[in-house]
This record gives sequence, C-alpha cells and structure tokens, in this order.
Amino acid sequence: MLELIGISVFAVSGTLAAGRKRLDLIGVLVLALVTAMGGGTVRDLLLDRHPLIWLADPTYLFVIVASALLTMAYVRWRRPPEKSLLVADALGLALFSITGAQIAQRAGMNPVSCVLLATVTGSAGGILRDVLTAEIPLLFRPSALYASAAMAGASMYLLLEWLGAPRPAPMLVGIVVVAALRLAAIWWRISLPVFQLERDGPTGN
Amino acid sequence: MLELIGISVFAVSGTLAAGRKRLDLIGVLVLALVTAMGGGTVRDLLLDRHPLIWLADPTYLFVIVASALLTMAYVRWRRPPEKSLLVADALGLALFSITGAQIAQRAGMNPVSCVLLATVTGSAGGILRDVLTAEIPLLFRPSALYASAAMAGASMYLLLEWLGAPRPAPMLVGIVVVAALRLAAIWWRISLPVFQLERDGPTGN
Amino acid sequence: MLELIGISVFAVSGTLAAGRKRLDLIGVLVLALVTAMGGGTVRDLLLDRHPLIWLADPTYLFVIVASALLTMAYVRWRRPPEKSLLVADALGLALFSITGAQIAQRAGMNPVSCVLLATVTGSAGGILRDVLTAEIPLLFRPSALYASAAMAGASMYLLLEWLGAPRPAPMLVGIVVVAALRLAAIWWRISLPVFQLERDGPTGN
Repeated sequence: MLELIGISVFAVSGTLAAGRKRLDLIGVLVLALVTAMGGGTVRDLLLDRHPLIWLADPTYLFVIVASALLTMAYVRWRRPPEKSLLVADALGLALFSITGAQIAQRAGMNPVSCVLLATVTGSAGGILRDVLTAEIPLLFRPSALYASAAMAGASMYLLLEWLGAPRPAPMLVGIVVVAALRLAAIWWRISLPVFQLERDGPTGN
Repeated sequence: MLELIGISVFAVSGTLAAGRKRLDLIGVLVLALVTAMGGGTVRDLLLDRHPLIWLADPTYLFVIVASALLTMAYVRWRRPPEKSLLVADALGLALFSITGAQIAQRAGMNPVSCVLLATVTGSAGGILRDVLTAEIPLLFRPSALYASAAMAGASMYLLLEWLGAPRPAPMLVGIVVVAALRLAAIWWRISLPVFQLERDGPTGN
Repeated sequence: MLELIGISVFAVSGTLAAGRKRLDLIGVLVLALVTAMGGGTVRDLLLDRHPLIWLADPTYLFVIVASALLTMAYVRWRRPPEKSLLVADALGLALFSITGAQIAQRAGMNPVSCVLLATVTGSAGGILRDVLTAEIPLLFRPSALYASAAMAGASMYLLLEWLGAPRPAPMLVGIVVVAALRLAAIWWRISLPVFQLERDGPTGN
C-alpha cells in the first residue's frame, strides 16, 4: 500500500516534469511510467529479481496512468500546488528508499549494499526522467540533500533493525528521517559543499 | 527473417543519425548496433531472457555492420532517399513491435504488459540512440504517432490472437497497422495533443 | 588486483569529470561509482552474471570512495597532473577491456561477442558518466582511438589464446596493445575518419 502511494507520487512528479517539455500524451504517460517504476526496476535488475512487479501485475500500470491523467486534468484548471508537491515528492523518496533497503536486506545483501540499493531505488526513476528529457539529473546538481537523505534514512533503518527494535519502528523511523531531511534541506536551503576544479582538467582526447 | 530486416533497417537509421553528429567510424558502428539491438536487449533484460540473441549468434552483428557500412558507402555518392527511409523506419518499428508482443506473449505476460513490451521493443533502440547523441528522444517530442502506433498495432495483434484468427493473420495485421498509422501520421502531420504547463512548475531543489 | 587498480583509476576519472560540473560531495561519489563500476555492471547484466561483484563484496565500494576522496583532497592544493592521468586512464581502459574479454570467454561466448563485451566493459562506465552529466559520450565524438583500441587489444588477446600462447602472455600483450594504441593516438593525435552527412538527413517526424 505504501509502495503504491510512492508510485503514484512519482507518477505525478514525472507528469509535471513532462509538462515543462511540451510532450504529447503518450510521451507524458511513458515519462510518468519511467519515473515511477525506474527506481524499482533498476534495483531489481541489479539484484536479478524476476519477474518485475509491474510486468507481473498490471495494477501498478493502472495506478500510474490514473495518476498521470488526473494530474493533467487538474493542472488544466488550477496551478499545481507547489508546496504540497514537494512534500509528496519527499514522501515518495522516503517510501522508495526504505522499501529498497528492505528488499535488499531480504535478498541477503550486506549493509553497505543495502544503503546503496536504497539510494538507487529512491533516485533512479528521477535520474531516468531527467536523462530522457535531456536535463542534468537533479542528483548531480548541487541541490538540497537528496541521495544523502536517502542514505541517512536507510542507514538509520538498518541500525534500528540490527539493534532489534520492534517492527515496524525501524521502517517508520527510516521513512521519517528521509522525508524530514529532504524537506528541512529544501526549507532552509541546506546543501552539501560543492566540489569544483578551477579550470578544464584532464581526460584529454 | 522479418526480424533481420527490422534490424537492418534500424542499423541504417542509426548510421544516418550518426552522420549528423560527426562521429568516427567506430562510433557510427556502435551507434548502429545500439539502435538496432537496443529495443530487443532492453526487452530481454526486463523479461530475464538469456542468452541475448546477438551475443549467442554473431549473424546479427554481421548484418548490422554490413548495413552500416553499405549506408556509409551509399551516402558518399548519393543523397539518402528521404521518403524510402521513412517507409523503412516505419516498417522497422512495425516488425519490432509485433515481434516484441509475440515474445512477451510466449513469456506468459498479461496483455497490458505485452503491449508495453511491444512498445519498448519498438522504441528503446531509438531512445538509446538519441540519449547517446545528447538529443531529446523522438518518443518524447511532440511528433507523428510513434509509441502510439506501436501500441495500437500490438493491441490489434493481441485482439486477433484472442479472437482465434488463423495465423499468421494477427501478426500481419498488427504489422500493417503500426506501419500504416506511423506513415499516415507523418504524411498528414497527425500528432497527439501536447501537454504543457504554463510556467515552471514545482519540483523545487 | 589488476581489476582493483582499474577501478581506482576510473573512480579518479569520474571524480575529475565531476569537478567540471559543480556537483556536491554525494554527487561526486555517485559519479565516481558509476564510472568505475558501470562497465562491469553492464557486461554482467548482458551476460546474466549474478550477484554483481560490488553488491556481493563491499571492498570495491571502499576502494572507489577512497579514490574519490583522495582525488578531491589532492586537487585542493595541487593541479591534477594531466599527463599521468591520461596514462592511468589508458591503463584503466586496457585492464577493463582485457578482463571483460576473459570473463566473456569463460562464459562461453564466441570471439566476436568477446571483443564486443571487452569494449562494453572498457567504455560503458565512461558513457554512463557522460550521459549523466549531459555530455555527448567520448566514445561518440571524433577522438583518439578509444573503442578501437579496446577492440584491437581484445582481438590480440583472443588470437594469442587461440594460438596457445602460454599464460599470462595473451593477457599482458592485450593490455599493452590497448594502452599503447590509446596513448599513441592521444600523443600523435591519431583518429579514425569522421563520417558526416552534408545536411539534415531523413528520420522525419
């Protein structure tokens, strides 16, 4: 259930990203689909988990298409509510990251790989969305904590699990940590230091 | 056989795309390869079908390399014939989409996933080609029906199969529907409505 | 061991590429990771080799993160040494290509596929790095032999193996051929002929 909410939220985010790119209807739906299912799909390909859930169960596709269509209908008569979307997007990141950590954990991964796969699950959909619309991915721009929020929350989740905290406490705490860090970072414009070379470096060709 | 024709056609399209990007010879061959095998490869990774056909059987690579070299030789002394290429490209989309639907069907997928995988098979090669040459993929520009033609033809194929139409009728009808829709859309400049937000929307960072 | 050197070298190259793009610290680490593990990961997904080595063994991640951090520390007080990096990058390409050819060979691939997978292993990391930072990949720019060096070295390796040359001679010769060709090409500005169409070609939409 939580997963479907995350999927729906990311479908909305893909649809709104499409709206800035003059795509046609099918393009919008495909972009919503890629944004919503990209993270889980890349994770499952890396883990060799088959069949992919959205191929096995069309419910996921219906939720995504419905979310995209409702978003398109909504923005025809009202400006999208900027703040509520940021909250929703942060919640999507949180839900996907912690779900990703859980799935990696069940697949017997070590903690480092669990944190990495949590980050992949949370961010790969947005990366694919940005690559397909020829943007530099958000993850690779100096921005309010994104991957770092996912990493922190997933680490907290694993720590609490390891300490034997009763379920579903670790999951809930993890989700709150990711969402809170991301929202706090947006709100107070917190970002990590930028690394920049002074002029064109090596890699000659 | 039909599949090899589709591959050859997409190799030609990749080569011509490369010609607008000032690539060297190896770059052209790699781009032709990616364009021609990308759709089937993404489909097979999503379905976990192994070994990949072009790794198991070098015939595919030879056809692609030969198609690319012949294209390069041809355009040295003659302008590429624009209309015949559009017909060929539409035929490639049609052949790949319906092949994709068949393979998904044989893998036991539900109809919705079959249509989706048909679209992936038909369009992922071109998407990869465009991403690697830093273009916004054709699929994500308001253009003459592309993904929609693939979806319509694959749906028609599945419907006729489900109705029990004698083979190879469903396949042939499906191929004709994709190619005809795509060509009609180019010819009469038909495209789906564009979805566009008025100004920069949310997704703050 | 040789593999870890290659990984470390590519992590440095990813870090330096990040330095030209104003990424934050996590962005730099992710880009270093993608550059260093991308080639092997794409190869293993194509070959269906699981589990992926960097998921099974965190050593790889530690080497990459350490390489990236050391690089960032180093360039704070000294310009990166351009020539030594080019040598290192060529060595990375050489190590990855020949490792890729060996792994493909052990997976029972035919020689043509071995050469192709050697090229994938050597170049996919850099392609992903360039796509994620919205650059046209180096492989697809008219540049000093890159994919071609990998192909030549991998072919030489397979030829010597087939001729029964005692190990590790084929491997060493292969590595030297790749690195020497790449460096010679940079040094004397050797590149393959460029293929270019005179004006916008077909692929109407």
